Amino acid sequence: MRMLGKSGLYLITDEREVGYLTGYRSADGFVVFDEEDKLFFIDSRYYYAVKKQLGSKWDVRLGSKKEALEYIQKTGKRLFVDYRYTTLAFNENLKALGIDTEDCSKEIKSMMIIKSPAEIKKIKKACGVAERAFKNTLKVLKVGMTESQVAAYLENQFRVLGASGVSFETIVAFGSGSAVPHYQTGKRKLQPETVVLMDFGCVVDGYCSDMTRTFYFGLKPDKEFLNVYNAVLTAHLKTFEEARAGMAWADVDKIARDSLIEAGYGKFFTHSLGHGVGVNIHEAPSLSPKGQGTLENGMVHSIEPGVYLNGKFGVRIEDTDYIENGVCKSFMTFTKKLVKIKPQY
Amino acid sequence: MRMLGKSGLYLITDEREVGYLTGYRSADGFVVFDEEDKLFFIDSRYYYAVKKQLGSKWDVRLGSKKEALEYIQKTGKRLFVDYRYTTLAFNENLKALGIDTEDCSKEIKSMMIIKSPAEIKKIKKACGVAERAFKNTLKVLKVGMTESQVAAYLENQFRVLGASGVSFETIVAFGSGSAVPHYQTGKRKLQPETVVLMDFGCVVDGYCSDMTRTFYFGLKPDKEFLNVYNAVLTAHLKTFEEARAGMAWADVDKIARDSLIEAGYGKFFTHSLGHGVGVNIHEAPSLSPKGQGTLENGMVHSIEPGVYLNGKFGVRIEDTDYIENGVCKSFMTFTKKLVKIKPQY
Repeated sequence: MRMLGKSGLYLITDEREVGYLTGYRSADGFVVFDEEDKLFFIDSRYYYAVKKQLGSKWDVRLGSKKEALEYIQKTGKRLFVDYRYTTLAFNENLKALGIDTEDCSKEIKSMMIIKSPAEIKKIKKACGVAERAFKNTLKVLKVGMTESQVAAYLENQFRVLGASGVSFETIVAFGSGSAVPHYQTGKRKLQPETVVLMDFGCVVDGYCSDMTRTFYFGLKPDKEFLNVYNAVLTAHLKTFEEARAGMAWADVDKIARDSLIEAGYGKFFTHSLGHGVGVNIHEAPSLSPKGQGTLENGMVHSIEPGVYLNGKFGVRIEDTDYIENGVCKSFMTFTKKLVKIKPQY
Repeated sequence: MRMLGKSGLYLITDEREVGYLTGYRSADGFVVFDEEDKLFFIDSRYYYAVKKQLGSKWDVRLGSKKEALEYIQKTGKRLFVDYRYTTLAFNENLKALGIDTEDCSKEIKSMMIIKSPAEIKKIKKACGVAERAFKNTLKVLKVGMTESQVAAYLENQFRVLGASGVSFETIVAFGSGSAVPHYQTGKRKLQPETVVLMDFGCVVDGYCSDMTRTFYFGLKPDKEFLNVYNAVLTAHLKTFEEARAGMAWADVDKIARDSLIEAGYGKFFTHSLGHGVGVNIHEAPSLSPKGQGTLENGMVHSIEPGVYLNGKFGVRIEDTDYIENGVCKSFMTFTKKLVKIKPQY
C-alpha cells in the first residue's frame, strides 16, 4: 500500500475504498491501518471469507464498529477518516469515546487517481463486458420495445457476461428523450426513424466502466441530426488525439468545448467533458472548466462531449480512456461512427 | 407532511428521504422545509421534471447545494439534518457558512415507521412483482445453471414486470452455500437433489420488497433437511399468528426464537427475526432481541427466521408483512410449504 503522507491511524469504512485498499469490497468492514499495522475488522457473517482471502496480508479480526473503535481508542493515535464518507452519526460514536478526527479525503483521492497496471486490467475487463453486452443488445432491438425493456436486456447481458452489476442507472433514451442529459429510462416505445442514446456501465472485479453511444434506428437520419452527430464526433476525436500527460484538466475540456463552439453548438454542450473512473463511477480527475490538476500517466477518465437540442434530440459519444506513455488510449473498440440500424418488427 | 416535533428548518439530502418527503426520489435534490416553507433545490438537469411533478406542492427552485445553503444561512433559523446521512465533508460546508446542525434522525425515523395506505399499496406492488418474478424463475431452472445465471434471470424478470431495480443484492445459494446467511451469489452449478435458498427484493415506485424462499431441487430431500424446514416454517407461522399491535419488538423476535429452541435448533438461528421495509430495505422497526419499541398499525416488517447448519445447508423463510387492525398480515401469497422441483435438463 502506498503511504498517505499524514502520520497517524487511518480508519476506512466506505465500501469502495475498503475494496480498493484490501481487495475485498465490503460495506460492513472496518479497515484500520498505519505504517505498522493493517487491521480488517469484520463480523461473523463474512469473517471466514475475508480471513481466507486476506489473511496473509491483513490482520483480520472478528468484530465490527465496536471492536474497531475500541482498538483506535487504545492506541491513542491521531485519527484520519475520509470526510466524504463519514457521517455525523458515526462521528458522534467517535466523539463519545473521546476520539477526534481529521480529514484524509485529499490523500485518498490522490492515492486512487493513478491506476496500477492491475487496476487498468480490471477496468479494461469491465469495458469489454459493457461493449459486448451493448453489441448483443443492438441485435435484438425491435419496433415497439420500450426503453425499460432495452435497459433490462442490456443489464441481463452484463450479468451473463460476468459483471456483478451496473456501475450506475442505465440510460436508454428514445427520440426527444435523448435531449435530456440525465434522462430517466421509461416506457417510450421504439419507432422507426428514431435517435437512440444509451449511456451505461457495469462493474467487474469491483471496477467500473462508462460508455455512451448515440445511434439511429432507421436508415434516413435528417440533416440536422447528421450535423450534430459529426460535430460531437469531431469534438470527441480531437480531444482524444490531443489530450496529453502534463495537460491541465480544464484545457482538455476546452479542446472539446472549442471544437463544438466552432461547429456552432457550443451553448448546447451543457456539462463537463469527463470524469475519472475506477472503483467509483465518478472520481478524480475532473475534466471540466473548473477542474484543477493535470493529466498524468495512469489516470483513467471518460471523454463524453454532448449536444442537446431540447425537444428534438441529443447526441453524446463517450468512451472510458486512460493515459499511457503520455498519450490518451481507449478501452473501447466499438466504433464511434454513426451506426444506422434497419428497423426489425 | 406530518410535522417533526422540533421547531426549526430541516435540510434533507438523502435520496430515499427526499423521495419519501416529496414523491420525487433524487440523489441531487436539496429539500429544505419548516412549518411555513417547502423548498426543493434541484439543478438544471432535473429542474423541469421536478417542477412539473411537484410544482403545485413544493417551491421548486433552480439550484443546488450552494443555493440551498445560502437560503438556510439567510433565514438564520436552527438547522436540523439527519446525522445518519450527512457527511463530515458536507458539515464542513455548513460550518464555513457559520451554520450549526442538530440531529433529526429520530424524528425522521419515527415519521417513516408508520406507513400510509398509499405507501402500503406501493410496497404491496413491489412484493407482487417480486413474487411473480420468482415464480417465473422457478419455471426455467435447469441442471447446470449457475447461481449468477439464476439471479440474472430473476432480476431481468423484475425489470420486465415493472420494477426499477433490486432493493438489495440478490442471493441465490445452492447446497452448502445456503448455510451462509449473507452468501455471495457465485458460479456454483445447480445439481439434482440440492437445497436452494433465494433471498431477493425489488423496488417499485420507490418502495422495496423483501422475500426469501428455500426449496428443494429434486424429489428426495433427506430427513434432516425436512426437520429443519419444518422447524423454520413452524417458527415463521407461529410468529405471524401471534404478532400483535402493542407487542414489544423484542417479544416478536422471541416467539420465533423460542419456537426454534424448542425444536432443538435455537443456536443455529444466528440473526434477528426481521426489520422494517419501506423506501429503505432496512429501516425501523427492528424485530430483534435488542429492539426497543412496540408494533403498531401501519408498520411494515419482514419475518425471516432461519437455521444454518454450517457445511450442510440453511433454511430461511421470509415474507414482508404489515400490521393492520391490530394483527399481522402478509403481502406475500406464494406458499411457504416446501416446494420440490423435478430437475429438468
